[in-house]
Amino acid sequence: MEPIRSLDQMLQRLSNQAPKRMVIAAAQDAHTLGAAFKAAKLGLVTLKLVGDGAKIAEIAASLGESIDGLPLLEESTLDGAAQKAVAMVRAGEADVLMKGLASTDQYVKAILNKETGLLKKGDILTHIGVYQIPHLGRLLFASDVAIIPTPDLSTKQKQLRYLIEAAHAFGIECPKAAILSATERLSEKVPSTLDAAILSKMADRGQIAGAIVDGPIALDCALSREAAQTKGLNSPIQGDADLLLFPYLEVGNVFHKTLTFCANAELAAVLAGPIVPCVLTSRSESEQSKLYSIALACMLA
Amino acid sequence: MEPIRSLDQMLQRLSNQAPKRMVIAAAQDAHTLGAAFKAAKLGLVTLKLVGDGAKIAEIAASLGESIDGLPLLEESTLDGAAQKAVAMVRAGEADVLMKGLASTDQYVKAILNKETGLLKKGDILTHIGVYQIPHLGRLLFASDVAIIPTPDLSTKQKQLRYLIEAAHAFGIECPKAAILSATERLSEKVPSTLDAAILSKMADRGQIAGAIVDGPIALDCALSREAAQTKGLNSPIQGDADLLLFPYLEVGNVFHKTLTFCANAELAAVLAGPIVPCVLTSRSESEQSKLYSIALACMLA
Repeated sequence: MEPIRSLDQMLQRLSNQAPKRMVIAAAQDAHTLGAAFKAAKLGLVTLKLVGDGAKIAEIAASLGESIDGLPLLEESTLDGAAQKAVAMVRAGEADVLMKGLASTDQYVKAILNKETGLLKKGDILTHIGVYQIPHLGRLLFASDVAIIPTPDLSTKQKQLRYLIEAAHAFGIECPKAAILSATERLSEKVPSTLDAAILSKMADRGQIAGAIVDGPIALDCALSREAAQTKGLNSPIQGDADLLLFPYLEVGNVFHKTLTFCANAELAAVLAGPIVPCVLTSRSESEQSKLYSIALACMLA
Repeated sequence: MEPIRSLDQMLQRLSNQAPKRMVIAAAQDAHTLGAAFKAAKLGLVTLKLVGDGAKIAEIAASLGESIDGLPLLEESTLDGAAQKAVAMVRAGEADVLMKGLASTDQYVKAILNKETGLLKKGDILTHIGVYQIPHLGRLLFASDVAIIPTPDLSTKQKQLRYLIEAAHAFGIECPKAAILSATERLSEKVPSTLDAAILSKMADRGQIAGAIVDGPIALDCALSREAAQTKGLNSPIQGDADLLLFPYLEVGNVFHKTLTFCANAELAAVLAGPIVPCVLTSRSESEQSKLYSIALACMLA
């Protein structure tokens, strides 16, 4: 399979596949429904709705759409809707979960519930962003910009595995994974450099498979061959990183926000780790970005 | 004084002022000399050279320049040159220090030396970057993207003070300072949110003066009024931040590198804290950026 190198190529690839079944938790939200109807029209998904039926119908009408004929599970409370949508996923009735009006807390709580949730033992709930930066010519898969504040080594290992699996789903057979820090030089004063070294060596020993892994590396040497050469760095990445693993949430978050607010980057994002990909868009995202996020969930489903 | 809103406005402002005396530690370096001669031609600085005279003359000639008539202190070793340049600053013979061929370690060691260095008691050596982001319409002053891995609260307070002083030098009378984290919500799980809260309250109590300080705040709400409104945030910053204080080195470093590699940002940078601003350019920086950094040092001298 030819690697997918842009978010629009991702949409094209999906147009040749059967649609995925997506359930929306508390679908009475105009932003969510707008993106979901658009994805359904493109043939990415078929919709299943959980929530307040009267409100959903009203909002759909205000968008010039109708929910006639769509499966609807009535539930007036928001946390109830999150739980019922999660239960549908567990029952094998949906391939992708999407958050509607339920709060992120309610949504995540339903996913994380040990008895009734969507996490298998040993998995974690984390965030994967797929970034399309002007002129880069490839996609960057990055984690975690939104969920886990201070991942420990074992958590980082899982985040890295999810990133690698996502790259594989995009046809990138042997992605290059940059374990980021502020420098390429190991130092006890910069703990992120030590974790990066350990993850790199794990990959050397075959404990992490499916990618070329190197770190610590700073973002310039991860993205620019010229920067790596100027620094005299000898890394298998040398500016060609496909995957970026951040040491702390704040690092990923600033990367995400600098790209979206200062660099006209486009992005798609999902919560990874659960038994199906979970879409969690934010109100401030563009319509296009919400559509890309649904498509990303379909790619990873 | 009208606030300076771009790096070229900074150059214009300096063109009306008397040049500063800049001493170069181990000036036998083509990148450094090129930028220094350019700054001298623009009237920003007069040059004093420390280093290997024969090599400096040769490099100057290769740049089509001459060092005839420039003060030159002969010193063949690199750490010796760093020490002698620092001594000239201590003797009041220079307003700005610039690193030439000496390594960053040699340069910083000479600056930090407790007996013979440039740090007054209670001051710290940190990094200030001034970023010009396309379409933002103002400059952003940020710290620390290069030097201090994990600043404690007292270090952050000093970094913030240097940022505020820099903004004042640019005519920004009451800058808005964003103490960054990944979220606006305080949580023990995200320690940077707690330090941010404490720094904000210090400003409320008058322990930090000369700026409007708020945090924790994520980069979107620091830079975008729309994002702050969408999030329902009520902050005195609301997208209008002039100053950004990062919780960890990796966060600042990723900000710096995302801007320079993905967003076509221009920048100037200096080491702040010593009794005179210290220029520390890197080989991979553009010629223009090196010139801006010299100019920034002159602004802060």
